[in-house]
Amino acid sequence: MGGTVAAPAAPPDGTLTERYRAVRALTEQLAAPLSAEDQTVQSMPDVSPTKWHRAHTTWFFETFCLNGNLPGYRPVDPAYAYLFNSYYEQVGARHPRPQRGLVTRPGIAEIAEYRRRVDEAMDDLLERVVPGRPDLAALVELGLHHEQQHQELLLMDIAHVLSVNPTRPLYDERPVPEPGRPDEAGWVAHPGGIVSIGHTGEGFAFDNEGPRHEVLLRPFAVADRLVTCGEWLEFMADDAYRTPTLWLSDGWYTVQAEGWESPAYWHRTDEGWFVHTLTGFRPVDPAEPVVHVSYYEADAFARWSGHRLPTEFEWEAVAVSVPVEGNLLPAGYLHPRPAPPADGRPRQLFGDVWEWTASAYQPYPGFRPAPGAVGEYNGKFMVDQQVLRGGCAVTPGGHVRPTYRNFFPARARWHFGGVRLAADR
Amino acid sequence: MGGTVAAPAAPPDGTLTERYRAVRALTEQLAAPLSAEDQTVQSMPDVSPTKWHRAHTTWFFETFCLNGNLPGYRPVDPAYAYLFNSYYEQVGARHPRPQRGLVTRPGIAEIAEYRRRVDEAMDDLLERVVPGRPDLAALVELGLHHEQQHQELLLMDIAHVLSVNPTRPLYDERPVPEPGRPDEAGWVAHPGGIVSIGHTGEGFAFDNEGPRHEVLLRPFAVADRLVTCGEWLEFMADDAYRTPTLWLSDGWYTVQAEGWESPAYWHRTDEGWFVHTLTGFRPVDPAEPVVHVSYYEADAFARWSGHRLPTEFEWEAVAVSVPVEGNLLPAGYLHPRPAPPADGRPRQLFGDVWEWTASAYQPYPGFRPAPGAVGEYNGKFMVDQQVLRGGCAVTPGGHVRPTYRNFFPARARWHFGGVRLAADR
Amino acid sequence: MGGTVAAPAAPPDGTLTERYRAVRALTEQLAAPLSAEDQTVQSMPDVSPTKWHRAHTTWFFETFCLNGNLPGYRPVDPAYAYLFNSYYEQVGARHPRPQRGLVTRPGIAEIAEYRRRVDEAMDDLLERVVPGRPDLAALVELGLHHEQQHQELLLMDIAHVLSVNPTRPLYDERPVPEPGRPDEAGWVAHPGGIVSIGHTGEGFAFDNEGPRHEVLLRPFAVADRLVTCGEWLEFMADDAYRTPTLWLSDGWYTVQAEGWESPAYWHRTDEGWFVHTLTGFRPVDPAEPVVHVSYYEADAFARWSGHRLPTEFEWEAVAVSVPVEGNLLPAGYLHPRPAPPADGRPRQLFGDVWEWTASAYQPYPGFRPAPGAVGEYNGKFMVDQQVLRGGCAVTPGGHVRPTYRNFFPARARWHFGGVRLAADR
Amino acid sequence: MGGTVAAPAAPPDGTLTERYRAVRALTEQLAAPLSAEDQTVQSMPDVSPTKWHRAHTTWFFETFCLNGNLPGYRPVDPAYAYLFNSYYEQVGARHPRPQRGLVTRPGIAEIAEYRRRVDEAMDDLLERVVPGRPDLAALVELGLHHEQQHQELLLMDIAHVLSVNPTRPLYDERPVPEPGRPDEAGWVAHPGGIVSIGHTGEGFAFDNEGPRHEVLLRPFAVADRLVTCGEWLEFMADDAYRTPTLWLSDGWYTVQAEGWESPAYWHRTDEGWFVHTLTGFRPVDPAEPVVHVSYYEADAFARWSGHRLPTEFEWEAVAVSVPVEGNLLPAGYLHPRPAPPADGRPRQLFGDVWEWTASAYQPYPGFRPAPGAVGEYNGKFMVDQQVLRGGCAVTPGGHVRPTYRNFFPARARWHFGGVRLAADR
Repeated sequence: MGGTVAAPAAPPDGTLTERYRAVRALTEQLAAPLSAEDQTVQSMPDVSPTKWHRAHTTWFFETFCLNGNLPGYRPVDPAYAYLFNSYYEQVGARHPRPQRGLVTRPGIAEIAEYRRRVDEAMDDLLERVVPGRPDLAALVELGLHHEQQHQELLLMDIAHVLSVNPTRPLYDERPVPEPGRPDEAGWVAHPGGIVSIGHTGEGFAFDNEGPRHEVLLRPFAVADRLVTCGEWLEFMADDAYRTPTLWLSDGWYTVQAEGWESPAYWHRTDEGWFVHTLTGFRPVDPAEPVVHVSYYEADAFARWSGHRLPTEFEWEAVAVSVPVEGNLLPAGYLHPRPAPPADGRPRQLFGDVWEWTASAYQPYPGFRPAPGAVGEYNGKFMVDQQVLRGGCAVTPGGHVRPTYRNFFPARARWHFGGVRLAADR
Repeated sequence: MGGTVAAPAAPPDGTLTERYRAVRALTEQLAAPLSAEDQTVQSMPDVSPTKWHRAHTTWFFETFCLNGNLPGYRPVDPAYAYLFNSYYEQVGARHPRPQRGLVTRPGIAEIAEYRRRVDEAMDDLLERVVPGRPDLAALVELGLHHEQQHQELLLMDIAHVLSVNPTRPLYDERPVPEPGRPDEAGWVAHPGGIVSIGHTGEGFAFDNEGPRHEVLLRPFAVADRLVTCGEWLEFMADDAYRTPTLWLSDGWYTVQAEGWESPAYWHRTDEGWFVHTLTGFRPVDPAEPVVHVSYYEADAFARWSGHRLPTEFEWEAVAVSVPVEGNLLPAGYLHPRPAPPADGRPRQLFGDVWEWTASAYQPYPGFRPAPGAVGEYNGKFMVDQQVLRGGCAVTPGGHVRPTYRNFFPARARWHFGGVRLAADR
Repeated sequence: MGGTVAAPAAPPDGTLTERYRAVRALTEQLAAPLSAEDQTVQSMPDVSPTKWHRAHTTWFFETFCLNGNLPGYRPVDPAYAYLFNSYYEQVGARHPRPQRGLVTRPGIAEIAEYRRRVDEAMDDLLERVVPGRPDLAALVELGLHHEQQHQELLLMDIAHVLSVNPTRPLYDERPVPEPGRPDEAGWVAHPGGIVSIGHTGEGFAFDNEGPRHEVLLRPFAVADRLVTCGEWLEFMADDAYRTPTLWLSDGWYTVQAEGWESPAYWHRTDEGWFVHTLTGFRPVDPAEPVVHVSYYEADAFARWSGHRLPTEFEWEAVAVSVPVEGNLLPAGYLHPRPAPPADGRPRQLFGDVWEWTASAYQPYPGFRPAPGAVGEYNGKFMVDQQVLRGGCAVTPGGHVRPTYRNFFPARARWHFGGVRLAADR
Repeated sequence: MGGTVAAPAAPPDGTLTERYRAVRALTEQLAAPLSAEDQTVQSMPDVSPTKWHRAHTTWFFETFCLNGNLPGYRPVDPAYAYLFNSYYEQVGARHPRPQRGLVTRPGIAEIAEYRRRVDEAMDDLLERVVPGRPDLAALVELGLHHEQQHQELLLMDIAHVLSVNPTRPLYDERPVPEPGRPDEAGWVAHPGGIVSIGHTGEGFAFDNEGPRHEVLLRPFAVADRLVTCGEWLEFMADDAYRTPTLWLSDGWYTVQAEGWESPAYWHRTDEGWFVHTLTGFRPVDPAEPVVHVSYYEADAFARWSGHRLPTEFEWEAVAVSVPVEGNLLPAGYLHPRPAPPADGRPRQLFGDVWEWTASAYQPYPGFRPAPGAVGEYNGKFMVDQQVLRGGCAVTPGGHVRPTYRNFFPARARWHFGGVRLAADR
């Protein structure tokens, strides 16, 4: 994350305390450009208010780290346990998700104070208790990765909130980048065979990234860059949004019910297609990767192009040999950038758009959720979702890795989802 | 309106400028206890955010008084014409009502500035232009009465917004009044005959209060006080909310669909029935008038009691002989008060609760809406609404008169609606 | 009712037994052209299947006349009490209205048998019990008028059922009438004053037609014929369905939500507007009265024309001096006919279309529902409905009188509702 | 299929003409116990009326086999192309699925005639044209398997139609079987490794059963019989329907939204749990396999039992070594039967209940839909569905094989879905 909202990047090799502070500070920095009014509204049931994200991530540390572990600690406000639980059934009743936007109090001042008091107590916990408690260190680690996820959610949610305002406000003013020049996509082949999939055990991973196991693949290839807006305009010009045979049955139904005729946030104007982004309302740049498309659209595009989407295993088999670092967006971006020059390897693998895969979100063989309430983190969502891989322009830098499994329903468009093609070989 | 939010009462006999300033100042005073977050949320489609009320009333003056009349005046922001039009079809497209709570910008600071700039221009207009323009003076007058209506809406809306918050916040802290002691209701008889109904032409009235015309009444009587919470508890104890034969067909359907078992804002607790009001969560006071009941409930109560509701003509025939003044709530109340001692006349006629009448909201014979967009003010709502008469605890003092016709759908409960009984004689 | 489905008109002066047999026979005759499949379907929640009408009218006699009154009588099937109760809360639980179309058994053969057995028992009752029991005779009388209402409902419901079938089937084949030639409408004036309204006590009337009482009217006039399809085409050509200022607020909302651009059952074809009727799909005849319009449309038309709708009292004041007989449709019609030549009196008052009035459906002063379950017949619907007067092309002949109050919600269009204009004088 | 509705089993080795006649005759035999009313109703959007199934299967032969192939053939009724297309976008517009129950005409007599005339033409086609046209023979073959699918749909749909009738009618009267005696389930182990999955190419298969490909499995075991109603009663007694941690997130939401507390068609009575089946309303038999459970319930049961569901690949790896024949239900059953005595192999693999697998419905590697409209048969449904394997009590005998992939949304319960457990080894 960079530019005007650029934050102290969380030092990946710092101490746990240093990393705690850095992650927590970034959340506040991301919220800083937003007014109290901006932070209160829920523009659709999937979206949560900014102030809810700020409070919920704090509640996570309070509930799973402080309570019962820091001697003498008492919850800041007993009502928060109900208001700021997201979906953990094992820690009690919770406020209904679609009503998060109805809660005007606590306001942003009280939530800033809540964060301050929990951070103070966490300082204490990290200094005095955590050193002898590896289980607790693991929960703090989980809490940090959880908060990084919510940093991304905060940005994609506020993008939606601002988009429903007829005055089209921006999250952040910055110069519009120069339009890029797209090149032809190339293909990177993989011989198939038995490959190992899942987290190796080094560094942090969510439970759904394991157990590591073997999968048998047939020979395949993936495109060496993402599908561009220019290619998407061709798809639209070919009447794809009005051609039922290109679509999954549910996809076609959704296209008609929702009246889709372009990616989300695109607007037809007298001067051609424009797009409303966090940083501006500007013409669609044909060189940029397309983003804010549903799985239905990604799948239809692949069919139209004569190719297909990769499975998540194919994607991972290719991605493990590509360094994350050079692939991440440079500081200052809140939207994907055009592909860098071709170099024989897949480009834009990490950090531009989440890439829809052909894989339904299912447990790996032998998967067992963690015991206790944090076991509800991932496993209970393993139905009717599609896996996305990679990372996107609003994903915090330290939160990207080749085994990471993101997932959304096939109809979702408000996250930063895009497309990479694949083919049999 | 009084107490903590007490305002400079609009001087009814002041100059138009004085009255303009007083009415406008009261709106800001009513909003003052509310945070930016409170002022942004729309808790159901019927409710509008506080900041919308503040902006819409300002838009009314800008659109109908300033535009085209004050030389050199230019609208503060062209987008506001779309955002803050409520329902006037003749002045252009408008933002959909159910989405008023999604608009985070302009925020309350920009809206305060909007009000300031319009007030400045209105000062100018009132001094330089209005004196020679009786038509314009009439529009300013209409705008003031319009703003008074929205003062009441602002309070009934924020009561709903705060009620959906699980932490039950208050609008205003103040001491709970002592519980009253209800007396027996008496009856005030009227001989019937031909009576004149509607506004006489002195002072301001909305178009729906005329033309004045004659109606033939049969002999009847009305109760000399409002139905109390104590009487409502008897109705509930008699299983009325589970007895279909007491209800209109639509009413019984609604009771079941909504799960009603008491007036709105009542909560069953271990210590009996409590009520969430603007000023506190406190036990139901048996001596206070019941409020926040629908027409369906008012009608069912009347049937249960062996009586009926008065027609709006009966109500007016009685009310014209009772002075408004002594009937108004003393300053400092935001909820109805127990009846004063009986004195042979109907008590609590003005200023405690709006009284549901048996009359559907229909035009008086010869009714013609005003020409132009302000003609949309009342006439186009004349179907599927019931008339209420009187005024309530959150109605501004100068906004109460015997011929005033308020109206709501039969199922509505969030306004301050209560019950007075009537009977044939 | 006539032509192919012409029935033995119920002899209005016959014995009760004769009239019972005639009414019951007409129901069966009306159902005769319909297949088992036709009689089973419920095309929207407002509609009931034909076989349900046949069973429910039978249940009425069984429940209110036979049970407990005919010695030894036992209900034909105990399940029918649940399946065929329409809305009588006092006689027990009932099958939900929107699910009437899901009940495949009993089928039409069992329902024919149900009717036969109840008719047999009723013969017995009429001969042996009723002569000494005027209360029972009154219930039989009520049952007959009830069945006549359902004869009309059966026809308007089946018109809707057949209309949703893309193959546009007919209820009854018959020659298309010659298009008529509309004349100019004239006006019939009334001086106003105190008029008596409501049933005089001679002959049968529903409880909602009384008590007879006095109403004060201002001078007015009513049009001497109904609004025609030709006039409606002008209204449409003037873009009325896209002009919000012509409409009540709820009406405009409904026009947009439903996509209305013409009366119900009208279809735009390459050869102009056609209409799907019980007897054919044919060009709209400009001379025929418009029918299948909502109250919203009737009200908008009146506004557009510079006039208004009559109140139900104005209508009745005029209608009492016009003989019903000559106004009824000749046998053989299932749709309204062009106006006969002008003769200085209002034409088409009875038997062509139900005429929307400006009056909300409210109880007359002093109204008391009948005691017991039959008291649920009318009173509990007295909110959010508009009164219609007259009678229509599918109303049985003996069921028409000047004091009859029909009522439907303002949005309803599937009954035979049309328009007569009125004006102040 | 057997007993009262027993049909001439389609001779699997007969000529195409013989098999055509046998399959077509079975459809008519299955419809025979149903009245015109039964065959018309659509009790929920997922359900189609019996007469629609009879017509749609006929339309399939008319559209894909007769049209353009049988010289001189003209469609029986041009309207049928619109009315009886299910979901084939490439052959034109179609009647909306949720409105299938509104079409009263054509009635069952006209549909019987439609079937007769198409069968006559097909006889011709099969004799004169098909012999030289292997492509056409393949389409006829597809049409027969398509009709067999609809035979099953017809029965599961009519079970739902009859279930919503408060009188609980039966499809077929027959003696209630003796309750069984459940034995302990055993486990059948599989060593894992690379297994071949998909159709081998011998005999008919749908396109989604291929291409045959290799999958890498870990060692596992499957239960040697289905989960029983007795085991399900224990699950219910352990409060499983009120324990959120047992459920997928969407599953828990659905349980609450739908008020589920047992499998579909179960009813709590004073004498314990009863079940409404095609052949009777009778006590739940603890020895019978549980059926009419959703994927959510199957998954929750597996979690509760400490095991898991098999993947579709594990299921197939085991099933290929088990003969279909001995596993099929004996004639005369319309519901699953208790497990036969254990014999060291998985029992009840085919023909009792469809077994929910842990696998989302996705294309096999290299999958390509057939060209033309019949390519819409399977592929376009490959998202948000779970695979079921086996076959059930209402599946026609010749329609069962180890590679068959059935699929339904996770919430569906009206098909005959049950549970077999699996475990890692």
